[in-house]
Amino acid sequence: MRLNLPAPLAIAFEEAESAALRREVPVGAVVADKAGNVIARAGNRTLELKDPTAHAEMLAIRAAAEILGSERLVDCDLHVTLEPCAMCAAAISFARIRRLYFSAGDEKMGAVEHGPRFYSQPTCHHAPDVYSGLGEDRAKAMLKEFFRSRRS
Amino acid sequence: MRLNLPAPLAIAFEEAESAALRREVPVGAVVADKAGNVIARAGNRTLELKDPTAHAEMLAIRAAAEILGSERLVDCDLHVTLEPCAMCAAAISFARIRRLYFSAGDEKMGAVEHGPRFYSQPTCHHAPDVYSGLGEDRAKAMLKEFFRSRRS
Repeated sequence: MRLNLPAPLAIAFEEAESAALRREVPVGAVVADKAGNVIARAGNRTLELKDPTAHAEMLAIRAAAEILGSERLVDCDLHVTLEPCAMCAAAISFARIRRLYFSAGDEKMGAVEHGPRFYSQPTCHHAPDVYSGLGEDRAKAMLKEFFRSRRS
Repeated sequence: MRLNLPAPLAIAFEEAESAALRREVPVGAVVADKAGNVIARAGNRTLELKDPTAHAEMLAIRAAAEILGSERLVDCDLHVTLEPCAMCAAAISFARIRRLYFSAGDEKMGAVEHGPRFYSQPTCHHAPDVYSGLGEDRAKAMLKEFFRSRRS
């Protein structure tokens, strides 16, 4: 049984599933405006692009900034299937994202509720409002299946 | 009087000076191999590219990964005029940079010796060896002059 997810987060899951089919770690992200209209969507492409910075969040933020013609995504929200790492958490801050929605926490690499907890640092000058947990079980199952299949 | 800097760091300073001429915050970065040969060089271009992720370090890492055809810059070093922020510190870790050389510390945004101290976090899975302070006065003077001229 699948939860009904808000449209941008459902699209982030589609992007994560596409990433898994490309043998990338399945993470997907969407930048939406405050009415929920999708501005940019992306999945993880670090292997395909041979780019260590090509996480889903980074690609979605860069695409949205190009579309909007500004390095500040004012009044935009980011929806992502996994807790952002330190790189992505800081990029979200620099882009002035209004709200961050993420599904599964990431004990190993997360930087929002784990590790550096970037948004609580004195060196963080803009923190989004954070909403976590919606779609968590689905995101965790997808990652677990991906790493299980990669080992076999 | 100017210190004689190692060649890659001297080139990072050239990139920082070029960034200032473009009215970007003057930060420059170079990825070099372990013999000191320059693989990629970049200055900050966040305003020009309208890309909040276009810090000097990110652009240099992405260019080097493209040139080397790998998302892991094994046996490569990064030379940068300013202490990396959390985004760049994490990207440096993901790229498996061997040594990080930076000139000036950054109390406001730094994530190596300030704020999250990313390389000491349990969620950091590769930490470069860090060498800081070489060229510090020059980097600080350049940043101070840039922000002074921008206010006037």
